[in-house]
Amino acid sequence: MKALVYHGPGKKTWEEKDKPVLIDSTDVIVKISVTTICGTDLHILKGDVASVTAGRIIGHEGVGIIEEKGSAVNNFNIGDHVLISCISSCGKCGYCRKAMYSHCEHGGWILGNTIDGTQAEYVRIPFADSSLYPIPAGADEEALVMLSDILPTGFECGVLNGRVKPGDTIAIAGAGPIGLAALLTAQFYSPAQIIMIDPDVNRLNVAVTFGATHIVNNSLENALESVLKITNNKGVDTAIEAVGIPETFELCTAIIGAGGTIANIGVHGKSAVLHLEKLWSKNITITTGLVDTFSTPMLFKNVQSKKLDPQKLITHRFKLAQIIEAYDTFEHAAKEKALKVILLA
Amino acid sequence: MKALVYHGPGKKTWEEKDKPVLIDSTDVIVKISVTTICGTDLHILKGDVASVTAGRIIGHEGVGIIEEKGSAVNNFNIGDHVLISCISSCGKCGYCRKAMYSHCEHGGWILGNTIDGTQAEYVRIPFADSSLYPIPAGADEEALVMLSDILPTGFECGVLNGRVKPGDTIAIAGAGPIGLAALLTAQFYSPAQIIMIDPDVNRLNVAVTFGATHIVNNSLENALESVLKITNNKGVDTAIEAVGIPETFELCTAIIGAGGTIANIGVHGKSAVLHLEKLWSKNITITTGLVDTFSTPMLFKNVQSKKLDPQKLITHRFKLAQIIEAYDTFEHAAKEKALKVILLA
Amino acid sequence: MKALVYHGPGKKTWEEKDKPVLIDSTDVIVKISVTTICGTDLHILKGDVASVTAGRIIGHEGVGIIEEKGSAVNNFNIGDHVLISCISSCGKCGYCRKAMYSHCEHGGWILGNTIDGTQAEYVRIPFADSSLYPIPAGADEEALVMLSDILPTGFECGVLNGRVKPGDTIAIAGAGPIGLAALLTAQFYSPAQIIMIDPDVNRLNVAVTFGATHIVNNSLENALESVLKITNNKGVDTAIEAVGIPETFELCTAIIGAGGTIANIGVHGKSAVLHLEKLWSKNITITTGLVDTFSTPMLFKNVQSKKLDPQKLITHRFKLAQIIEAYDTFEHAAKEKALKVILLA
Amino acid sequence: MKALVYHGPGKKTWEEKDKPVLIDSTDVIVKISVTTICGTDLHILKGDVASVTAGRIIGHEGVGIIEEKGSAVNNFNIGDHVLISCISSCGKCGYCRKAMYSHCEHGGWILGNTIDGTQAEYVRIPFADSSLYPIPAGADEEALVMLSDILPTGFECGVLNGRVKPGDTIAIAGAGPIGLAALLTAQFYSPAQIIMIDPDVNRLNVAVTFGATHIVNNSLENALESVLKITNNKGVDTAIEAVGIPETFELCTAIIGAGGTIANIGVHGKSAVLHLEKLWSKNITITTGLVDTFSTPMLFKNVQSKKLDPQKLITHRFKLAQIIEAYDTFEHAAKEKALKVILLA
Repeated sequence: MKALVYHGPGKKTWEEKDKPVLIDSTDVIVKISVTTICGTDLHILKGDVASVTAGRIIGHEGVGIIEEKGSAVNNFNIGDHVLISCISSCGKCGYCRKAMYSHCEHGGWILGNTIDGTQAEYVRIPFADSSLYPIPAGADEEALVMLSDILPTGFECGVLNGRVKPGDTIAIAGAGPIGLAALLTAQFYSPAQIIMIDPDVNRLNVAVTFGATHIVNNSLENALESVLKITNNKGVDTAIEAVGIPETFELCTAIIGAGGTIANIGVHGKSAVLHLEKLWSKNITITTGLVDTFSTPMLFKNVQSKKLDPQKLITHRFKLAQIIEAYDTFEHAAKEKALKVILLA
Repeated sequence: MKALVYHGPGKKTWEEKDKPVLIDSTDVIVKISVTTICGTDLHILKGDVASVTAGRIIGHEGVGIIEEKGSAVNNFNIGDHVLISCISSCGKCGYCRKAMYSHCEHGGWILGNTIDGTQAEYVRIPFADSSLYPIPAGADEEALVMLSDILPTGFECGVLNGRVKPGDTIAIAGAGPIGLAALLTAQFYSPAQIIMIDPDVNRLNVAVTFGATHIVNNSLENALESVLKITNNKGVDTAIEAVGIPETFELCTAIIGAGGTIANIGVHGKSAVLHLEKLWSKNITITTGLVDTFSTPMLFKNVQSKKLDPQKLITHRFKLAQIIEAYDTFEHAAKEKALKVILLA
Repeated sequence: MKALVYHGPGKKTWEEKDKPVLIDSTDVIVKISVTTICGTDLHILKGDVASVTAGRIIGHEGVGIIEEKGSAVNNFNIGDHVLISCISSCGKCGYCRKAMYSHCEHGGWILGNTIDGTQAEYVRIPFADSSLYPIPAGADEEALVMLSDILPTGFECGVLNGRVKPGDTIAIAGAGPIGLAALLTAQFYSPAQIIMIDPDVNRLNVAVTFGATHIVNNSLENALESVLKITNNKGVDTAIEAVGIPETFELCTAIIGAGGTIANIGVHGKSAVLHLEKLWSKNITITTGLVDTFSTPMLFKNVQSKKLDPQKLITHRFKLAQIIEAYDTFEHAAKEKALKVILLA
Repeated sequence: MKALVYHGPGKKTWEEKDKPVLIDSTDVIVKISVTTICGTDLHILKGDVASVTAGRIIGHEGVGIIEEKGSAVNNFNIGDHVLISCISSCGKCGYCRKAMYSHCEHGGWILGNTIDGTQAEYVRIPFADSSLYPIPAGADEEALVMLSDILPTGFECGVLNGRVKPGDTIAIAGAGPIGLAALLTAQFYSPAQIIMIDPDVNRLNVAVTFGATHIVNNSLENALESVLKITNNKGVDTAIEAVGIPETFELCTAIIGAGGTIANIGVHGKSAVLHLEKLWSKNITITTGLVDTFSTPMLFKNVQSKKLDPQKLITHRFKLAQIIEAYDTFEHAAKEKALKVILLA
């Protein structure tokens, strides 16, 4: 089969690889129908994610059709259309028993990280019964790919960790796919003001159509000053970091109001400065986290009922075999006005 | 009257000052019976706390007797013995209505900070009805001084913010008075293991008598390695920072386990490095905060019933007029084996 | 002045009473501009509320203008337009310090209950600084009267106690003003399905225009069967009781799903049967409660920004002097298609 | 093999039954080493639990040794000593994914209820990987049997649902094994006062040795009056129902203070009267629930470290073959001064 393989920092190829086979009785083999590229994949390709080694097929999002199943898989059958979660969970370890699936002792974020991933014609999915979701006939499978990672991540790591509440003023630093996923799902909690911060005019304009009440272009204006002005110098109730660089994280710590929460979603490759000399007395909370995906069924229901429309996030479509071209588009997102780039088998 | 006055970094005197007078109808004037020195006062004297200006009477802990009261004070009468809270709260502003008294728009931590404090023969207490607690006859007033600040601070900012739970493994960096207050009050939640980290042998020995199950001398051993060994490389569930320097805060971020909470109590004068490249995927929570003192009545009840014994924290006693000598002892805490230093009028 | 006075079960008169005077230094006297009638007032008139004695001026909702103020009132001045909260709170007692204002030791729900209320030309408001909200010039004072009681009550006692979450299926038993207030504010949390249950066709139709996704007419159909059908026999996540009779409370306990929450808002005059033989193993939560009004500032903000439109709830307007006629309309709500009945001074 | 079989209300026999066999690949067969009798078993024998049909082997507590395992069991091997949880959980269904194992769609409380149970020489345990806990060599297996049901039930359904907090005043109605389990585990949260209510002098005396601060003999005194006296008429913060009859549940609703929580543990066969006419304005919470057993690993750790000593609960020991005699003792608990009755294979 063909797959997208990481060969060390800056190197990737679309090449022939062995088709995956069942290893454990809880595995299935999925034939990929739709997949996509995540900002995290770009981090991996830069060499930022140490756990990903050369030779790895990357990708952790996708939908597909079950082609083979292990003897202990009970919830799915061959031929079923399934949504693949970026998080694999055994359902039995101490972390899984606490519903903290992101840190499953035998799973967690392993797809396209420590085991081969979804940017391929086939993928092996471990712990299938607790790591896949059934897709009903007629569902919009492109839209559902947004449930593999970015929607639950934006919601759980941004909105829920950030404790967004009705009437709140929130800011989201970064209007890329994950920041926009946080923007879409934050509205489940009816904040009064949503300030979107990004240096890209196009993305800010998209954010307005997605529900942002204020936009701040931090390539043109001093974002700290702008946010303080919007909030009458009180700062925001919740700041969501959706970029993954020190500058935006530090901005979040500057704009937070007393008693507020900073929810980090970004994948960081460097440390940031934490101004404890200002923050020690400010009664703030900072959270970090991989997604646990416990919210996926709820989000799935909202996609099915059209309350949540992830199609909005899709700007480009390619054939899976054109994935190198798709990466090129995604890497030049500003120029290409790209958000999510769909790959169709 | 006599009072301890800050005259800029490194300068303090015990000098004659005007006796305070009532300003607002919600004020009382308290004649101080017992006061003490806080680690924060040492930070102030170094010039670390910018809001404290030259000429200020410092001190924010104490018990005393009401000598005068404003016309709108209903809960107290002249002659009442009262515990002074380090936090003044108007009870009416937006923050007070949310029980976030630390950030009262007209109060908060103002005593010995932006208004004159308790290291004096008399002190004016604003918002008396919501900032003082009545002391019943016969109570141990020395012990109760520990309720002005360190016990509610250790409990709320350390134990509650740190979400200490039965069976948890927790670490407290710093075995000074505030770290020991966290140690004492953490036991209300029955953690299984309490690791106390400090470079002072005497304080660690005290910590053991107060309930620590493990001690780590970070002047002699690598604290990170020691804690990882104790926790089978899992890290701790809660790390409480009770020093106020980058090294101990960064240690807390290194020893924290996946899903854990770092609760900062320390008063910091410098920023710390936050290793987001390691922490982004670790599902941790970091909190900072001034105490809101909502727990003071509960702690008071436990002191009265002897379930909590703050006398343990008192190592030295001086006459109030000997306060310069008391400061000298407190500044050389290791040599003097000093924890809390009591000043008696 | 003129006022509406309760003279024992079934008896009320619009009669001459002494104008109220300041008693405590924290009091104000408010000249009523707008008031309204609450379902609770009907309960009082039936004799259901034992704490209300003959001779009492009833009413606990309103806006008005401050005419006199006590010496200890700092937040308001004579001439200020103010919203009166149904809950008076001293801001100082143990309950107030926990933000549980409904049970303030010196206040709580006392207006039109244990002290004279707002269905009068003037009213004395105790603890003015912590029991009134300033109304900016040009605000819609009719709409704001809905913030005295029904909106915070529907939101806090129904929506927040009921733990409504995004994607949930909820049912509200009772489509009167308080049930509709719960319906409006439940949508802050984006439940997927909102089932409104009432015997009145008009109110159900109103509920649909307010956002109900399903309606159940319990005078025409078996409500239990209808709700089970809608929920595929799973029952609802949250059931909100907004009537105050055993039948609807018991219906809520029948339609609740495993792990769900029943939030009682209704003012009850009789006990209900609790089927513990079915409920003991169902992991449910039942809450009761008077409103604490901590959410009033947030709701006020949403009314000002038009995110919440309480004008929708107003169906009739009368002059204050026509209050007996207004009661007549409100008592025949079904026939008159009445929701909230506004009284203008 | 021999087993205790329910043959309809009032009828049980110790009789020969077929040894269980593996049905699903996730099953194991456990040879019982130690089991016990639960109050729920007495309810079953009375015919109170409709789901238990004639012919059923009852019992849902025990430890034993794995004799056979299905092909999909990964966490355990033949010969392993295991603790059996009263709750079986598949780990994959919607309820399990929310850690609400009590309502697992394929499990929950099924042992000795809808499938054969543990009062037998052998038992089949479904979903072994997520329903058993490994027992290390040398552990006290009698003590661990208390972790099958009563300790997690007392803790989760009583203490956690009841939101017991440091400094609280709590009451526990019922000093049988489950009430005493709540008493033991409530102390993890350091309530200030624990009032134990029971008509049996012996059990009350035991409760005092277990940590109760006050006892109320409701066969000799008016329990409501006694509790109000102890609490200065404020009522308790938490009332835990650990009997399962209307009288004690109603007592809990009478003694609860404003803002308090009633946590029901009892298995009820009848409905109770809920005095909403008194409770509607009292801001209380009532919870019911089967145990989810998420706390079992934490409690296990505390038993191993001797912080929790369940041996205290064991009063009698029998050979498994003497189970009819053991039932006789347990059914006459007051006369026999019986708490938990251990059965050894």
